[in-house]
Order: sequence, then C-alpha cells, then structure tokens
Amino acid sequence: MNRTVRLAKRPTGMPGPDTWTIAEEPMPVPGEGELLVEVKAISLDPAMRGWLNEGKSYIPPVGLGEVMRANGAGVVLESRAPGFAPGDTVMGGFGVQRYAVVASRHAEPIDLGVAPFERWLGVLGMPGMTAWFGLFDVGLLRDGETVVVSAAAGAVGGLVVQLARARGCPVVGIAGGEAKCRMVVERFGADACIDYKAGDVRARLAEALPQGIDVYFDNVGGGILEAAMTHLRRRARVVICGAISGYNDVASIRGPRNYLNLLIQRARMEGFVVFDYAPRFAEARAGIAAMLADGRVVAVEDVREGIDRFPETLTELYTGGNMGKLVLRP
Amino acid sequence: MNRTVRLAKRPTGMPGPDTWTIAEEPMPVPGEGELLVEVKAISLDPAMRGWLNEGKSYIPPVGLGEVMRANGAGVVLESRAPGFAPGDTVMGGFGVQRYAVVASRHAEPIDLGVAPFERWLGVLGMPGMTAWFGLFDVGLLRDGETVVVSAAAGAVGGLVVQLARARGCPVVGIAGGEAKCRMVVERFGADACIDYKAGDVRARLAEALPQGIDVYFDNVGGGILEAAMTHLRRRARVVICGAISGYNDVASIRGPRNYLNLLIQRARMEGFVVFDYAPRFAEARAGIAAMLADGRVVAVEDVREGIDRFPETLTELYTGGNMGKLVLRP
Repeated sequence: MNRTVRLAKRPTGMPGPDTWTIAEEPMPVPGEGELLVEVKAISLDPAMRGWLNEGKSYIPPVGLGEVMRANGAGVVLESRAPGFAPGDTVMGGFGVQRYAVVASRHAEPIDLGVAPFERWLGVLGMPGMTAWFGLFDVGLLRDGETVVVSAAAGAVGGLVVQLARARGCPVVGIAGGEAKCRMVVERFGADACIDYKAGDVRARLAEALPQGIDVYFDNVGGGILEAAMTHLRRRARVVICGAISGYNDVASIRGPRNYLNLLIQRARMEGFVVFDYAPRFAEARAGIAAMLADGRVVAVEDVREGIDRFPETLTELYTGGNMGKLVLRP
Repeated sequence: MNRTVRLAKRPTGMPGPDTWTIAEEPMPVPGEGELLVEVKAISLDPAMRGWLNEGKSYIPPVGLGEVMRANGAGVVLESRAPGFAPGDTVMGGFGVQRYAVVASRHAEPIDLGVAPFERWLGVLGMPGMTAWFGLFDVGLLRDGETVVVSAAAGAVGGLVVQLARARGCPVVGIAGGEAKCRMVVERFGADACIDYKAGDVRARLAEALPQGIDVYFDNVGGGILEAAMTHLRRRARVVICGAISGYNDVASIRGPRNYLNLLIQRARMEGFVVFDYAPRFAEARAGIAAMLADGRVVAVEDVREGIDRFPETLTELYTGGNMGKLVLRP
C-alpha cells in the first residue's frame, strides 16, 4: 500500500491537522514512460506554505485533494521508461507520499556515492541551487564584499554563509536562538551571527559590520529586512529569496519602510525564483559537490522519521524548530 | 542689494512661512576664481524637501541660516575666473537668491540659442538628466516594453513619458487631475494617463496595460507604487526616483506591501541619484536637445515671478499645484 498526505483544506494562518488527509491508498501503477519510485527522503521547504494559498504566484497552488507537492529522493522500483532501471536512485517532485509515479523526464539520477538521499534535497538540491544563484547571479557577490543572510541556520541561509566564506567575504548571519547562532559561526564559518530573539538586530548589525552591507540575502522579510536595509552600502544588492516571517500571516506582510535607502544608496532589491536557473543547475551542483568534498561546505540536515508526522514537522519550519535542512523519511 | 531666502527653521511636515528668512543683503563680492551671477531662473524641485531634514541622506542637509540650495540659471555680471566674462550665461547651484557668487568650476555655460533659461533647469537640466538615466540606465528600457510613470505631468515624469514614446514604447502616465492627464496624453504623447484622484489606480492600470508593466518609474511612493507593483511583468524594473507623497510626512512612508511580487515576477527595484551620472550629462543633454529641436520632446514649464513667493510656490510641488517644470524668476 501507498501512504499519502493530501491537501484537505486550504489553511488560514498556520497549517493544522485539518489541513491534511493522511491515508493508505493502493500502490500507484506506472504507465508508459513513467517510473514507480519508493520515496526515501522528502524535502520540507518554507515555500510549501505559499503553495497552499489560492491565487497566482510563481507556481500554481496545490489543488484541493491533491498529494502535497514536495521534492523527494528515492529508489526506482519499476521502470517503464528507457534509461531507468529498478534500483536506480533519483530525485524529483515526488510529493508527500511513500511511493510515487512520475514521468521519467521529471526524475533526475543521483549518485549516493557523492551524497546520501537527504543531501540531494539540501545543499545539492533546490536549497543549494537557491543559495548559489541567489548569491552569485542575483546578489552578484564580488571579492571583498560583505554579506548578511537571514535564516542563516536554515537550508538556504546556511549555504549562503558558506559560499560567501569560501569566496573570502566577511559574512554575518541572522538566526533565532543561541544554538543556531553557534552553529552558524562554528560550523558554517560566519564571522558573527546575530540572534534576532536576543535584541536589536539593527544595532547589532551596525556593530558587526560598521562598513555596511554589500549583499543582503533575505529569507525572512519583516523587521529583519528593514534592519538590514538600514545598513546598506553604496550599490548594495538586496536579494529577495523568501519572507518566511509572513507566510502564515499574509495580512501582516509589509514592505520595508526604509525602502528609500535604495535611492540614497543607489541600491537594488531583486527577487528570483530558482527554477529559472535549471539549465545551469549542473554547474552549481558540481561547484557545491567539490566544496563538500574538500570540506569548504558542510551539510547539516535535520532528519525526521514518519510520513504521519508531516503536518507538525512542517510547522516547525515556521516556528524555528529545525536546524539545517529539514527532511522527512516517510 | 541681493535678496536671499535662507533656512530659518527645520520644518516638520510642510514647510511654512516660518521655515524661511527672506531679506535684503549686501551684494556678494566674488573672490579669485569666482563669478558673480545674476540669477534669472530658480529651479524648484521635489527633492528640496529632503534637503531640509537633518541627518544622513544622499546629500548633506541645508544648514540653518544658509541660503536655500537650488539650481539656477543666469548671467555672469563679474568674472574673476579664466574662461568666463560678463554677459556669459551659466547654470549651477546658485541658491534661492537674486545674486550668487560661485566658484567658476561650479558654473556651466548654457546657450540661450538652444533653449531659454527655464529649459536649462527642466528638460536640459537635472530633471532631464534624471528622466534619461533613470529610464535608460536604471530602468534599462528595451524596445517594445511597456512603461508606467507617476507624477507624469511633472518635470521628470513628463520627460520620461516622452523619451519612452520616442523609443516607440507603450506608456501610461499617472497624474493628479483631469487637466494634467490631458496634458500627459495630448502634449507628451502617453497612450493613457490615469487620474489618481479619480479612482482606483490598480484597476485602471490593469485595464490600460493588461500585459503588465516592464518599467515602472516611481516619483511618488505610497499607494501608487503599490498599485503599479501589482502589475509587474516578468523581469520588470521598478525605478525609485523619488517618493513625493511622503516627503512632508516621513512617518507615513511605508514600503510596498506587495514587494514579494519582486520575487514572483523576478523583478527588481532600484534607486538612483542623478549626480552619479554627471560624467555622462553631455551625452543625455545632446540627445534631449536633438529631440527638442525636431519636436519629439516638448518642454512644459510653469514659471512664477518673485523671489518672495518662494515659500508658497515650493509647497505647490507637494500639493500638485504645478503643471510641468516649476521655475521661479527671482
């Protein structure tokens, strides 16, 4: 039998138990050109909350009654497509379920000799691609520039810290709580990490980076975005990757009141969606894999067990319960 | 005798009569390397309000007791600098006064055969440079793209409309009142102009440009910026030139609540300061002068008389009282 998590009801605010239907279902059967995959790891991403809302965004919402959209990694059990055989390891948009049928063109081979399942959803997966293209292509990071990144203990932010450090740039992270901040400094190599729960981010940023910020990589929005924008340097780039602080309370989202600092500092705020860089994922993945191999990048995953725990595990993303890339083994 | 307008008191909110001291003073005397200029036209610019506030911005504030900063155009009465002679016509930062002494390196010759004094403060002056570099260098306007500009009846906005039209791009202006909107369409050539006083800018933009906006040139901020940001196309550029709606009520300034459209649309918001383009002003001025000569650009100036009317004339910029470039003949 398969076990699936389907969207039962669009949540207002934080998704709750009634958002989902978890059920046993018959094993899905692959058609021509399709694969049956046993899902070994499911990626839990902040963006998931947005996919639950009705309306136009960068991607259509998950439909009511559909299996929750998720990236995953797993093993091919049955192949009806050329180029794939049982036992192959793959990743793709497998959804929150134990077994998935996908068109083979939506499955990408992964090499467990390079990294285990979880890592293909983290630094070698979408979060990795997001950090890489956000920092280098949108943020246009140059040697010697200063970087600040919010949600620095998270999947994307943690890699942004490390990529900037590997480039030799001063980096300050922002994260919630002492334990996360310690990880950001000690494991990811940030020069400093500001605990936003412990005080005035604006003042702490000014202390940590008196010279100001060249690239601010924002995952959170709200008051932290505003604080960072107070300290922009001339021609700074503010990379809008996400705004997790507002995902469960859309009415609370506001723009940075000090957006005119963009004018004063001749600075730029730019959004991006990682899918646009798909033709260049191989390049980024090779770069990150090389850094993993020689230790310039470490991967931190927070792995949970049990597909039935998907609902409460997802909410931890928004309450700060995870350290590093959050992955569920179904 | 000279007659000067000096900053007496930093205003909170709209500048009032007590903001200024207007007085007769002895004629200033040029020293070595300086010119005495009779000011024939004084430029009134929205940015002036910002110069009255204490604190760090893109330019230091006007000091208490100082002659109010302003661009101007006039005639050299006395020269103690090589390359200038009495009768030469010049422009520069002459301040709000009848006679100015300036270092000759801060005076730029102007040719009244090309355009009268007023025009050198308008389409051939800072507003012209602002429109040109904002639209082409920050906005990166490309053939066939759609442009929306706020304060489209103003000095900068009116030229943005015309430059975009000259490029063959669809342009929609936003302005306050029927008379201004008529001018923006009939004289500047906009495809449409939305009267923000007459209804829902957001809905009107969607009607006028169902395909969305590629370049939004913002002079006003507030709800109009937000409305325009609802209709961004993929990879749109939002050019932050100013935010006149908030200049007299800084506490009211807020960022666009829908700034995450930058992410959804992979769009960019970027500020600029025209001074940075000074090395290229000659290029822009030549381009605009050619368009003036062949009629692709028309200049609309709103010329007032009498230096003593500076205080109330300045406030008209913020209450929408002017049509086109506001100039005071002292």
